[in-house]
Amino acid sequence: MGLIVQKYGGTSVGSLERIRNVAERIAGTYEQGNNVVVILSAMSGVTDQLIEMAQKIGTAPDKRELDVLLATGEQTTVALMAMTLIEMGYNAQSLLGYQAEILTDSTSSKARILDIGANRIKELLAENKIVIVAGFQGTDAEGNITTLGRGGSDTSAVAVAAAIHADACEIYTDVDGIYTADPNICEKAKKLGRIAYDEMLEMASLGAKVLQIRSVEFAKKYNVPIHVRSSFHEEEGTMVVNEEENMEKVVVSGVSHNKNEARITLRKVPDRPGIASRILSPVSEAGIQVDMIIQNTRSGNMTDLTFTVAKSDYRAAMEISQQTARDIEAEEVLGDENIAKVSVVGVGMRSHSGVASKMFAALAEEGINILMISTSEIRISCAIEEKYTELAVRTLHTAFGLDQDDQDSRAV
Amino acid sequence: MGLIVQKYGGTSVGSLERIRNVAERIAGTYEQGNNVVVILSAMSGVTDQLIEMAQKIGTAPDKRELDVLLATGEQTTVALMAMTLIEMGYNAQSLLGYQAEILTDSTSSKARILDIGANRIKELLAENKIVIVAGFQGTDAEGNITTLGRGGSDTSAVAVAAAIHADACEIYTDVDGIYTADPNICEKAKKLGRIAYDEMLEMASLGAKVLQIRSVEFAKKYNVPIHVRSSFHEEEGTMVVNEEENMEKVVVSGVSHNKNEARITLRKVPDRPGIASRILSPVSEAGIQVDMIIQNTRSGNMTDLTFTVAKSDYRAAMEISQQTARDIEAEEVLGDENIAKVSVVGVGMRSHSGVASKMFAALAEEGINILMISTSEIRISCAIEEKYTELAVRTLHTAFGLDQDDQDSRAV
Repeated sequence: MGLIVQKYGGTSVGSLERIRNVAERIAGTYEQGNNVVVILSAMSGVTDQLIEMAQKIGTAPDKRELDVLLATGEQTTVALMAMTLIEMGYNAQSLLGYQAEILTDSTSSKARILDIGANRIKELLAENKIVIVAGFQGTDAEGNITTLGRGGSDTSAVAVAAAIHADACEIYTDVDGIYTADPNICEKAKKLGRIAYDEMLEMASLGAKVLQIRSVEFAKKYNVPIHVRSSFHEEEGTMVVNEEENMEKVVVSGVSHNKNEARITLRKVPDRPGIASRILSPVSEAGIQVDMIIQNTRSGNMTDLTFTVAKSDYRAAMEISQQTARDIEAEEVLGDENIAKVSVVGVGMRSHSGVASKMFAALAEEGINILMISTSEIRISCAIEEKYTELAVRTLHTAFGLDQDDQDSRAV
Repeated sequence: MGLIVQKYGGTSVGSLERIRNVAERIAGTYEQGNNVVVILSAMSGVTDQLIEMAQKIGTAPDKRELDVLLATGEQTTVALMAMTLIEMGYNAQSLLGYQAEILTDSTSSKARILDIGANRIKELLAENKIVIVAGFQGTDAEGNITTLGRGGSDTSAVAVAAAIHADACEIYTDVDGIYTADPNICEKAKKLGRIAYDEMLEMASLGAKVLQIRSVEFAKKYNVPIHVRSSFHEEEGTMVVNEEENMEKVVVSGVSHNKNEARITLRKVPDRPGIASRILSPVSEAGIQVDMIIQNTRSGNMTDLTFTVAKSDYRAAMEISQQTARDIEAEEVLGDENIAKVSVVGVGMRSHSGVASKMFAALAEEGINILMISTSEIRISCAIEEKYTELAVRTLHTAFGLDQDDQDSRAV
């Protein structure tokens, strides 16, 4: 008996039949004596369809109005879900973002939640209702509809859970939980029982699409434990929680990879102060996110500067860089779309040394050349040739002892 | 230079291309120095699709949630319209029902507008914005989304026009205006330049689908002149206005017909007090609207009772009546699906006598038998065999002088 927040993603509510399945799951939780608040995404594909329609009007549709348009997606699913539960004999009611008083700033299309006036939700819960809240959307102080960006329903769920002091925040998705590596390329990958917020943040920023980064930041800030689990079966998933003491026993808790990387090198750049900014600013100004950056000193007053971008931004970044190279009289621009990034992540790194050298040695042993390196306090990433990605992930998984089910492991 | 409310129906905004055409029309009105508030319906067909989807969940989907679902239709069109105008370089902003403070009662799916807090609209107009308001939807006092029933956007438009004291309320539709008869069956039908609210109310209740009845009631109550016109060209349409003195010069301003009628007769019913109620109450309780009713006295203590219902309700009404007939020991139940109703309407009837006898004589002259008669202060309706409908309309159109363009006529 408790107060449970459940969030279901677009795939879980992608058809009336799936909505019915989810409704049965919600009803089951309610029947166990819990109060239930449900956060829903739009049906899978709907948001993309709406964006596509808006882009037929203009390449950069007005953001305020785009949010009004996109908000219809979640409005549709919450209405259908409430109807389904009512049809099943349950007392349910939908709330849109503004009705649930999800107050955000005014940054259209990627608004940040400022506050949740949980009164309406609490009132409905007091009437024993199952409350179905539209995820992804909120309202700013002037009453405009805002949306929270891709994956924003995760953040809605965590924020609602924080506001009503829920006992649990369950994020239902199409995967079982968080794995030590992608099970599709590493068959020895194991589901983690627990993962620290910081680790999850690194995983998410590395391309693991299970949770929106902001939802994890929110969960960390308000200390909301998240249970990531599958909507297709009853098995426990992964708890995303505050760092616990024994978590540090495990040096590396996961290996992640990202094939969506491309590399651009400007060779023989005149080495003068501000040159990195001169090269990278035009790229950023074009809205392209730069990931890794390295600069090598060459002989004399020349340097090489290399950076990576998402593959989808490669062509645009290349054009910009070629223009810059002409302007600053760099010798040439080299590009490589066939790179990937492999990373090891773990809060245990803080208290263990030698992780980097172990990683480099393991890759070297398999003949995998490291092209670039970047690190954080709890992560080491290497850019490598793309064709070695799977081998690298499996090698690191073995090297850091993640293949075994030993007692130190957090895998379940 | 003025304050213009324009309402565009589903056909007018049925595609991005049509939205663009309407946007140009709106921009044109704005460029002439007017402040413009636009009310939009959902794209044609969308509301029906949403209802169909809801009915897959259950035959009687929860009405509160159905309204949440249906409201997405207008939300989509206002967002797309605002985007289009902004893309064209105009300063536009959408408002949903609750944002425009369209306050209604809590009767889901056919809510009545109680009040419009015009502040937000006025604020945006003061910023020289073109304001795009979602029609058909409002909010009740508790913040629930409500909808106003089929054609409700007309009422939204009139109510907004009343609240902001607009100089004009233009209802754009796929017809040119209000005609003296249906031009499809009466080629001499002429577009009316002006029509009185009361006449329009009768026309609407007779099945003319140009305006929602409630919008006319609202317009009458707040004395908002409505201009019904085509969204496909610039020609003037029909003004729906307060009754004017010279309107009474014309005895009959229009002839309307309705083929959607079916007749049920209970023969040899024991003639005792309350028998009509005993027969008709079960029909009404089944949600079936009864139109015309006549009761003939037979010999002795027997009577015949006849009533009409919409053709779509015929089968259900027949079953109910057969049960009633058994209960009250009526002799038999007769039914006829092949009837129609023709009506003449005009405020001039108040001051002219002999209209009914002229009507009956004209029909008799063509050998058209009158099955039932009903009247109001400004309308006379006759049920006839359906096959005579077109002939009856043309005959009455001629008999009441509507074929000619004389100076007394209100046709344009």
